[in-house]
Amino acid sequence: MEQAVQHLEITYKEIVKTFLHRKSELGLYEAQQFSKVLLEHQISPEELVSVHRAVLEELFPAVPEEVIDSFDLLLEVMMGYGLAYREHQSLRDRQL
Amino acid sequence: MEQAVQHLEITYKEIVKTFLHRKSELGLYEAQQFSKVLLEHQISPEELVSVHRAVLEELFPAVPEEVIDSFDLLLEVMMGYGLAYREHQSLRDRQL
Repeated sequence: MEQAVQHLEITYKEIVKTFLHRKSELGLYEAQQFSKVLLEHQISPEELVSVHRAVLEELFPAVPEEVIDSFDLLLEVMMGYGLAYREHQSLRDRQL
Repeated sequence: MEQAVQHLEITYKEIVKTFLHRKSELGLYEAQQFSKVLLEHQISPEELVSVHRAVLEELFPAVPEEVIDSFDLLLEVMMGYGLAYREHQSLRDRQL
């Protein structure tokens, strides 16, 4: 899992770079495709928020610490959605 | 809904401020409570990401534009989770 998340970070960093440098529809299309991959691999929304923070720290080392810290809060709130999402998966599995 | 989201932004801004200034357990506790309120009001994860961005822009006007822009991407990916979450609600409603 640790390794999968590392790959995710590398992949996501490339998507962020494409998006920011070209600000194109292509970036958003890649994001939608990536979103599907994340859901397939059962990556939780809070994990993605954590990857987003790591990528921002890498790409923009001068970003104020408080902005980076604020992601801890976003992450915490996202955990509620993560829980609902995992419940969704278990409900769906029971219906299959 | 527009008004509700405006209130959310005000509430969330206060939570972010508490969290950043005190970096205390209290901030995280507030975040967990807020997470429950969001789920009760069927606020999607992408809406929350949008509120987070708006609050950061307000609190840290000097943050590089690219960091703010990167939220468009996070928002896009979160839409996948939002969809799964709404499916979860509809599945649950059918089971009640």
